Amino acid sequence: MENFSFYNPVKILFGKGQIANIGAEIPVDAKILITYGGGSIKANGVYDQVKSALAGRNVLEFGGIEPNPHLETLMKAVELVRQEGVDFLLAVGGGSVADGTKFIAAAVPFEGDPWDILAKGAPVSKAVPLGVVLTLPATGSEMNVNSVVTKWETQEKLYFGSPLVLPRFSVLDPETTFSLPPRQIGNGIVDAFTHVMEQYLTYPVNAPLQDRMAEGILQTLIEEGPKTLANPTDYDARANFMWAATMALNGLIGVGVPQDWATHMIGHELTALHGLDHAQTLAIVLPNTLFVKRDRKWQKLLQYAERVWGIVEGTEEERVKEAITKTRNFFESVGVRTRLSDYGVGLETIPAVIKNLEKHGMTALGENKDVNPETVEQILALCA
Amino acid sequence: MENFSFYNPVKILFGKGQIANIGAEIPVDAKILITYGGGSIKANGVYDQVKSALAGRNVLEFGGIEPNPHLETLMKAVELVRQEGVDFLLAVGGGSVADGTKFIAAAVPFEGDPWDILAKGAPVSKAVPLGVVLTLPATGSEMNVNSVVTKWETQEKLYFGSPLVLPRFSVLDPETTFSLPPRQIGNGIVDAFTHVMEQYLTYPVNAPLQDRMAEGILQTLIEEGPKTLANPTDYDARANFMWAATMALNGLIGVGVPQDWATHMIGHELTALHGLDHAQTLAIVLPNTLFVKRDRKWQKLLQYAERVWGIVEGTEEERVKEAITKTRNFFESVGVRTRLSDYGVGLETIPAVIKNLEKHGMTALGENKDVNPETVEQILALCA
Repeated sequence: MENFSFYNPVKILFGKGQIANIGAEIPVDAKILITYGGGSIKANGVYDQVKSALAGRNVLEFGGIEPNPHLETLMKAVELVRQEGVDFLLAVGGGSVADGTKFIAAAVPFEGDPWDILAKGAPVSKAVPLGVVLTLPATGSEMNVNSVVTKWETQEKLYFGSPLVLPRFSVLDPETTFSLPPRQIGNGIVDAFTHVMEQYLTYPVNAPLQDRMAEGILQTLIEEGPKTLANPTDYDARANFMWAATMALNGLIGVGVPQDWATHMIGHELTALHGLDHAQTLAIVLPNTLFVKRDRKWQKLLQYAERVWGIVEGTEEERVKEAITKTRNFFESVGVRTRLSDYGVGLETIPAVIKNLEKHGMTALGENKDVNPETVEQILALCA
Repeated sequence: MENFSFYNPVKILFGKGQIANIGAEIPVDAKILITYGGGSIKANGVYDQVKSALAGRNVLEFGGIEPNPHLETLMKAVELVRQEGVDFLLAVGGGSVADGTKFIAAAVPFEGDPWDILAKGAPVSKAVPLGVVLTLPATGSEMNVNSVVTKWETQEKLYFGSPLVLPRFSVLDPETTFSLPPRQIGNGIVDAFTHVMEQYLTYPVNAPLQDRMAEGILQTLIEEGPKTLANPTDYDARANFMWAATMALNGLIGVGVPQDWATHMIGHELTALHGLDHAQTLAIVLPNTLFVKRDRKWQKLLQYAERVWGIVEGTEEERVKEAITKTRNFFESVGVRTRLSDYGVGLETIPAVIKNLEKHGMTALGENKDVNPETVEQILALCA
């Protein structure tokens, strides 16, 4: 096992009715800005629950944060926070609202152009405190340091992370997700699954507990995913999916082990160029990343085949291929297509993806830093 | 799954050489009290590493905290902290030093008799901040709210818990444990194993991820325990055991599920009455608690049999019995005997244990609150 440090002070309030308890988690005299997306929280009752929990408090609102939140939109919220002297942000929505709100939190006290935090890795030294009411299990943003923001003007989708934007608390009430369309649930399953794979499917470093926790999340997603798609109001299935998605990217399964993330970085460029859903890009790229890099991932692919998919028959080659096929089939089974052509994207996108990866300094991806532009070309050529 | 809240802000610094980094985790102007036990840290170099990491800092020391730390000893440290105006405690040792230091932290600002925190459940509203350098993987105290203290005068071993005594950081360097005697490693394995069982082996509430994480820790202890006993300086085996012991009781596997803890409560009384090691009492009591309560634990016992021990043959009765036998044999295999007679304790202790449990209000133990004095008698009668 490699050395590590682990720190995750996010308080989780999990279960039905927990939104009612958020008042106690926010300083009494805080000026609160509620941030949200397209307004589904007004249709499904979550907005009312939040307002009710904060009755009598000093509350402003900022709606309209889009999927793959845009810098241009978020900067309007930054202006509002600065003008109004807001001192607590409450993100109510999915990963995009949470990520966008983390950016707002870091941008408000930032001196200079806040896009530099993502584009130039400018350090975050202060942030407005924030909380999250999660309504879409997928990204894990509710319990981690990460934020992904898209600059619409230049079609760049970039990432930053800082412990200063860890939510003070996150509410996970499975009932808030009952009204989500199947497409978003399928996306969430694929996103969480891929988060685990990026931390698990590399090479062995003798870290059996991290491996088993990762495998446990994958198995839970494989079992509960189809259940929760079939019966959106099955509370337990939704709760298990929701908790699995949070555990998939709260840092715990990644301690002391190598991590990949090539699939995510390639996927980000596909979203930026073609507007595909984040999870769609992962479903397209992951199976082929596993295939192209199979030699370096051999031992873990065999372990994954046996422990997650129960594949014990056949040659090693056959087991590895079957595990990758099962992964692809699982994504398809939850409604997320796995080929570029399914989304009307042709292979002529490859040079553009590579050019953007190069622009963002991402020419040595993966756990061995050997996913270079040539490898990306190989991977994407198989995604047709 | 049941509703839950989860909050664990302990920063973990894991791996070789991490003691060198503690200076950055303690406020520069803090007056620090290093607390420790019988002095093994001076023999194995840990003391020197800590002193070196804190060179030039304002540091006092308090040694002599015994296993099952005594109230009487700890109150001397409380006096010292009050007199000297210490404002940071650094526990260097195993679970007893960590637990004792948590008590000191809560006792210092407490108005009245600090034993009331344990004996009467008096609320903890303030505590001195603390950190831990762990040298014995076992109790999980390095990453949880718990503390167990023994009042020597009355032979009472009681428990308290408060988020205010969560360590600010804990260093887990597997190399600090290389010099531990086999008895302490065996005890640590049994302690961690039983911590998992108390949270896992109850009844199903459809929480598959918590189950799989619990099973993953048990499997890791079963695999790595014998390895680390056979080769004390095998870094990876020791590291995996150490991380498993921390994960066994940091709250995560217990979220949203029923918990038992009857074995621990009965075991505490055996330690208080007869001076047995904590883990020895667990190794004696757990197999018979599982057996006596097998009807209420049936489904989880079958799951445990199959997933943890690979038992799939035979009738349900046979599988349940075999799983319990395997549990007992595992404890024996790591050198911890599982019968009262192995420690020279006779069945005449039963009335005394029951009397003390009644005195401490523990007459309805277990996940169903049905482990009453009569059940305790049944359990202990089988422990001969």
